[in-house]
Amino acid sequence: MNEDNSIFIGGKPFMNYVTGVVMQFTTKGADEVIVKARGKFISRAVDVAEVATKRFLEGTASVKTVTINSEEFENKEGRQVRVSTIEVLLVKKKK
Amino acid sequence: MNEDNSIFIGGKPFMNYVTGVVMQFTTKGADEVIVKARGKFISRAVDVAEVATKRFLEGTASVKTVTINSEEFENKEGRQVRVSTIEVLLVKKKK
Repeated sequence: MNEDNSIFIGGKPFMNYVTGVVMQFTTKGADEVIVKARGKFISRAVDVAEVATKRFLEGTASVKTVTINSEEFENKEGRQVRVSTIEVLLVKKKK
Repeated sequence: MNEDNSIFIGGKPFMNYVTGVVMQFTTKGADEVIVKARGKFISRAVDVAEVATKRFLEGTASVKTVTINSEEFENKEGRQVRVSTIEVLLVKKKK
């Protein structure tokens, strides 16, 4: 799967992300899109996936799998920090 | 599965929830625990599930499935409102 089909959720306006997902499936003809986020943006990633599939892509695409994980890294103070991650895999429905 | 095995994430101190999950598996002998949340608490539910399984229950329990959904309801002004939900199913590892 092409990495270009990943949409990373951050602090931009909510509908930018929803539009991004919808366009991947419609104008770009993607079969799969992965909505990714870390930390506090996880709630937003779920909202984007839900709004995109239920309001804009109903009957066209749906959530296939949701994966959560953690990343550990060292912060500036040399302390070990853990951040949660999510990946929501959206797939085009078979006609 | 017993509904008592569900832990609903809200605004209490983070470690309360982690301890709640850990105790379900340890002192209460649960085989499964579901961590649930809505809206902005979704990120927190993922953090609770990750910290509980990776820091406290490593080798004992792990994330089995993650499910996202939406609930629609009418707010006080009679407007239709949508809120995202998450359920993280944690299961005891087979010995």
